[in-house]
Amino acid sequence: MYAETFNNLIEELKKMPGIGPKSAQRLAFYVLQSSGRDIDRLIEALKAAKERLKHCSVCYNITDVNPCKICADPGRSSEQLCVVGEPKDLIAIERSREYNGKYHVLGGLISPLDGVGPDNLRIRELMRRLRDGKFSEIILAISPTTEGEATSFYLSRLIKPFKLKLTRLAYGLPIGADMDYADEATLSKAFQGRRDI
Amino acid sequence: MYAETFNNLIEELKKMPGIGPKSAQRLAFYVLQSSGRDIDRLIEALKAAKERLKHCSVCYNITDVNPCKICADPGRSSEQLCVVGEPKDLIAIERSREYNGKYHVLGGLISPLDGVGPDNLRIRELMRRLRDGKFSEIILAISPTTEGEATSFYLSRLIKPFKLKLTRLAYGLPIGADMDYADEATLSKAFQGRRDI
Repeated sequence: MYAETFNNLIEELKKMPGIGPKSAQRLAFYVLQSSGRDIDRLIEALKAAKERLKHCSVCYNITDVNPCKICADPGRSSEQLCVVGEPKDLIAIERSREYNGKYHVLGGLISPLDGVGPDNLRIRELMRRLRDGKFSEIILAISPTTEGEATSFYLSRLIKPFKLKLTRLAYGLPIGADMDYADEATLSKAFQGRRDI
Repeated sequence: MYAETFNNLIEELKKMPGIGPKSAQRLAFYVLQSSGRDIDRLIEALKAAKERLKHCSVCYNITDVNPCKICADPGRSSEQLCVVGEPKDLIAIERSREYNGKYHVLGGLISPLDGVGPDNLRIRELMRRLRDGKFSEIILAISPTTEGEATSFYLSRLIKPFKLKLTRLAYGLPIGADMDYADEATLSKAFQGRRDI
């Protein structure tokens, strides 16, 4: 079959998520064909990520400085706290340029099937921030999936006693999408949330 | 946005074939979450592949010894030569355990649209092997795609003067597939190539 060195590379690549045997083989051929400098850069990036990246001790976003740039930014409001599941949700929100407050990254969503309960998320840390901070609004920016709804419900019960303004993102038709492609659940949420124009 | 180290890792991962922004992000999170040892092993595998793997000087398969194990194997017939496009085609054939001769890897197929002509393939090297070797049969094991057919046609014209037995793989229904899913071209090849039972 393949040379052992090549098989070994395929095996290591196959351990990554979403990389099956065929993709691993294609990536391995890419490694062979690309210049030594490209691979050196990839190796450097992997090493640097593993050595330098950690979670911000305040919001738990991924960062190479602590606290992270968002937490340390004096230009951002300390009155609003946006709670998200994963760092990638935070990135999606930052990309929209709609929000200028602080974040709290839970590190996942409640999912009993995957063995993820409230104790596995950074909910205790969130409660500590609510007690110590001077937030006036908490925004739950959590995907409207089964896991997300369970997490929002759980969080809202914990946050209500703080007597802060507690909001969630609007549900409705995604911009740019054809209405006849929208599923029933989205359409019924869009009806329920209809606004005067 | 993301920490620079993280962005940089995503950028390097995105250079790989079939890895878009979403996959690159997912892989980067995997790198963060996996143990340092896993990443070290991946880095080692990348380095080893880049340093040790080369093309066999006889058949142009990928190898870490030269000549490769197949070329050096005295248990394999030196009378048959199987011509394939890429190393992965060779592997597919080896997996079938049907063939016990030698190989020649062209390093691609003729594809004018991609700027790949006969001179970019190891056809001159194949001709040299045919002149110097003692082959009795040449098997073209080349995908029946447009590029593959062009390559087979080109090669057959070059090989015919050697007055060797020249064959190609059979075309027909793939084993295990439902007949009503077969496309017209495959079905008509299957009819043309029907056999007595």
